[in-house]
Amino acid sequence: MAARLPRLPMIDWTRGYDRATLSSDLVAAVIVTIMLIPQSLAYAALAGLPPQVGLYASIAPLLLYAVFGSSRVLAVGPVAVVSLMTATAIGDLAQTGSPAYATLALTLAFISGAMLLLMGLLRLGFLAHFLSHPVISGFITASALLIAAGQLKVILGIKAEGHNFVELVLGLVRQAPHIHALTAAIGLGTVAFLFWARRGVKPLLRRLGLGPRLADGLAKAAPVAGIAVTAVLTWAGQWQDLGVRIVGTVPQGLPPFTLPSWDWSLWRQLAVPALLISVVGFVESVSVGQTLAAKRRQRIVPDRELVALGASNLGAALSGGFPVTGGFARSVVNFDAGAQTPAAGVFTAVGILLAALLLTPALYYVPQATLSATIVVAVLSLVDLRILRSTWAYSRSDFSAVVVTLLATLAVGVEAGLVAGVLLSLLLYLYKTSRPHIAEVGLVPGTEHFRNVLRHKVQVSPQLASLRVDESLYFANARVLEDRINALVAERPALKHVVLQCSAINDIDASALESLEAIDQRLRDAGMRLHLSEVKGPVMDRLQATDFLRHLSGQVYLSHYQAIAQLVPELLKNRT
Amino acid sequence: MAARLPRLPMIDWTRGYDRATLSSDLVAAVIVTIMLIPQSLAYAALAGLPPQVGLYASIAPLLLYAVFGSSRVLAVGPVAVVSLMTATAIGDLAQTGSPAYATLALTLAFISGAMLLLMGLLRLGFLAHFLSHPVISGFITASALLIAAGQLKVILGIKAEGHNFVELVLGLVRQAPHIHALTAAIGLGTVAFLFWARRGVKPLLRRLGLGPRLADGLAKAAPVAGIAVTAVLTWAGQWQDLGVRIVGTVPQGLPPFTLPSWDWSLWRQLAVPALLISVVGFVESVSVGQTLAAKRRQRIVPDRELVALGASNLGAALSGGFPVTGGFARSVVNFDAGAQTPAAGVFTAVGILLAALLLTPALYYVPQATLSATIVVAVLSLVDLRILRSTWAYSRSDFSAVVVTLLATLAVGVEAGLVAGVLLSLLLYLYKTSRPHIAEVGLVPGTEHFRNVLRHKVQVSPQLASLRVDESLYFANARVLEDRINALVAERPALKHVVLQCSAINDIDASALESLEAIDQRLRDAGMRLHLSEVKGPVMDRLQATDFLRHLSGQVYLSHYQAIAQLVPELLKNRT
Repeated sequence: MAARLPRLPMIDWTRGYDRATLSSDLVAAVIVTIMLIPQSLAYAALAGLPPQVGLYASIAPLLLYAVFGSSRVLAVGPVAVVSLMTATAIGDLAQTGSPAYATLALTLAFISGAMLLLMGLLRLGFLAHFLSHPVISGFITASALLIAAGQLKVILGIKAEGHNFVELVLGLVRQAPHIHALTAAIGLGTVAFLFWARRGVKPLLRRLGLGPRLADGLAKAAPVAGIAVTAVLTWAGQWQDLGVRIVGTVPQGLPPFTLPSWDWSLWRQLAVPALLISVVGFVESVSVGQTLAAKRRQRIVPDRELVALGASNLGAALSGGFPVTGGFARSVVNFDAGAQTPAAGVFTAVGILLAALLLTPALYYVPQATLSATIVVAVLSLVDLRILRSTWAYSRSDFSAVVVTLLATLAVGVEAGLVAGVLLSLLLYLYKTSRPHIAEVGLVPGTEHFRNVLRHKVQVSPQLASLRVDESLYFANARVLEDRINALVAERPALKHVVLQCSAINDIDASALESLEAIDQRLRDAGMRLHLSEVKGPVMDRLQATDFLRHLSGQVYLSHYQAIAQLVPELLKNRT
Repeated sequence: MAARLPRLPMIDWTRGYDRATLSSDLVAAVIVTIMLIPQSLAYAALAGLPPQVGLYASIAPLLLYAVFGSSRVLAVGPVAVVSLMTATAIGDLAQTGSPAYATLALTLAFISGAMLLLMGLLRLGFLAHFLSHPVISGFITASALLIAAGQLKVILGIKAEGHNFVELVLGLVRQAPHIHALTAAIGLGTVAFLFWARRGVKPLLRRLGLGPRLADGLAKAAPVAGIAVTAVLTWAGQWQDLGVRIVGTVPQGLPPFTLPSWDWSLWRQLAVPALLISVVGFVESVSVGQTLAAKRRQRIVPDRELVALGASNLGAALSGGFPVTGGFARSVVNFDAGAQTPAAGVFTAVGILLAALLLTPALYYVPQATLSATIVVAVLSLVDLRILRSTWAYSRSDFSAVVVTLLATLAVGVEAGLVAGVLLSLLLYLYKTSRPHIAEVGLVPGTEHFRNVLRHKVQVSPQLASLRVDESLYFANARVLEDRINALVAERPALKHVVLQCSAINDIDASALESLEAIDQRLRDAGMRLHLSEVKGPVMDRLQATDFLRHLSGQVYLSHYQAIAQLVPELLKNRT
């Protein structure tokens, strides 16, 4: 990790900015803008906010990330999981769609931004490492299922409430008789179209004679096409009079200047959700950023990313937005479209600003079911159940972390799921390290190697026991070694020497040192000696600062072979 | 750890029980009984209970431990720290000394006994390992200071209340003008006598011509002498009429049969204190038991100890007692006095039973200040402030665990202190493992050894980077390796190979595997290759169950030297 934050990344990429880079960035910006408009509207709806808030949340964050961010292609804005977490955090505190609700959303963005900024300045980026891949994977999959289940009611034109997956699904089943046929036709039709568009549009356009790049770009605009077509149909048939819910009037103009609520008790209530949103957003953003940066041998600085995401969220809070982070889909599109520098983000922000100024009247007839359809198709690509099979095959503890996170998120909610997953994975890790693998080793005949007596045919002596501990010694496992040696001593009356091979011991804490002293004392009391071999440099440095080595009944040997050669030379006599 | 609980240890020691063993056990029992009588009274007072409860709590537990316990010399009964924890747990729930208070105490013993029994049957003994030596040490020292400060008011004959050390000391200072002179003279006189007796009595008796064994035994009876002398003086001067508080009437007779309260809400309230008492008692008992067993090449079985301590506490609860555990002082005395088998414990129980039946009228005039004096002298020997200096020298994180446990116990209380210490030490451990030592290594010229490039003069190649990670790879540190390799790649344009030396990696979890896959993918995308060397058997087994090795851009080498020899042979050309 860098000793200090490097200067603003902006200084690097603005120097030497030329015409070719400008042209690449402009093209990328146009493509990303087209993709972002429907996505911003849809994620605002997912968070329970009016559509224009989605546009606002895509302007200031993009500009601020361009100044502070260390990734050249990351696109910051509303994303599915963070929008769901926002809705969960503030859903019970105000009426969805009310001005109070909007203030809560931007207050959440403000708190989250302040936390991210503080974590960046305090170099706490490493905290995000405690979200393991299985936990993230289980969490994202469960969140996607929750989002999809929540959007289905909009797609089917029914009202169903529920705080968790089971309630949502039961609500849908119960309300099934009240499905609004026309709404369902629009919604399900759009879902079907978008799924088909993913695979079918590009080959079709190629067959129609379009170039591969253009065909690809147009394929990515499928959601825009879906929105345009359903909006035109709705206008032509005046379907809103038949009960199809539409977006309606979207205020036209610049993002407003807004301030968060300064109510301290509210801040306390939002602190935990804001922290979880910050960590999830950071983890998602950094993993996207790292993947894309590595493809061009670039690098992102995690602590710098915290600052940039913090600034982006503060910007969102001050311009009528809600919590944002670096999104996977939009960043990949930006990268594929050839964006070279964060200037592409600046141009995208200008594009969305123009949409907010000019395009909003055109959104009036967009059916809400269409927006929900774009969300469902987007989030279902996040569902990854293969992780269950792969972790089951690889490690039961990783598997249980996935399952617990997944089930807790579905059954209780996003926050409970995340916390349960993190705690379980930490406890499982501690449990594993508390029961280290301790192998008794013997000499492989004809070599200087020592291997596990249970797995290999090796030479041993009744007078000497060689133990290899495959874990750092610390308080939670120190006594396991004591128990093991006590058992050895009780079982083997001829035992004279115990030698610990320390090649896999990366640390010995004060508790383990006391255990070693106790082991040494007990062996000495019973007429035996304790020796160490292959102690690592840093561990040896520490031990030399104590008087343990001076009091040790035995010796410290550079290699385990040397220990055996000196202590039981008769074992080596029949060597080849 | 044994695969199953062995048969009752009793079966081993009752077979072959002979006259010589009987005589040894009887002598030890007499000495321990004499020592236990004042101690039992004093610890009952410390727990806020009438004196006879201390006697009751020393009978059934000793008998039950003799049947179930795996240590041959452990003596179970009331101990200082557990008595303090009992007073803390139930102090606010009922009036000290009332029948309701006594019921709470035995209910606590019942819950704690049930928990210990359950932990033993479920093999959860390892949970106690999570109490690190620094935490235990800080906790015991702070508890001893709390106990001593709490007893001082009895010794000085004043009333002072306080929930923590600061309040206790302030209370003592505020009440100083009301010191009861005669009580203080008895109390402080006894303290002075007992401190002197520790060092001075044995040499004095030897000079008077007594044998060393007898002198030692009599020296241990100093507290009994103190109690007898002050009781006789109080009787002679009828000091109770002058305001000296005395023990008063102690009911004579067998321990009563008692049942715990079955109030569920009370059980819920006592669950956490009972768990902490169980764990602290278990840790204290096992460490005493292990130390003594090892001296005779015997062995104790931790999961069996849980069962035995559980049975002892259930026994205490059903016979009018309070929470008990294996005590340090009494067990050492038992061992030194020559106890050979748990029969010594049975004889001791009979001795205490006789005391409860016959001796209690003699306790009428014992001043409470004398009992408090014996407690103060006993607990001050537990204060160990050297741990502060030794952990400071050895490891800052161990030092902070001691300090936080010590201060939290003194400032808030025993439960808060213990919990704070355990949580802090776990967090520090996780923090350490989340930032592993990653050394870039190079070839030591003329050898096949690789050492840290920062510490040694070694050969390296600009085309190849060798990294040695000194920690198991798991979710909390996987990304650190990603960052490190990303930085390397960004810094070194000539880099072609990255080789991870895995000799200190004891485990790779699913997150770390995904990180390795991501690293491999990124290196490959940038035209480089990732290799592994010296992968341990168990880790290799796991990796082979996945398709990671098949997709790996590089190879797996048995030794790091082989990797270098094949990848950059020119580095080895100028070898001697």
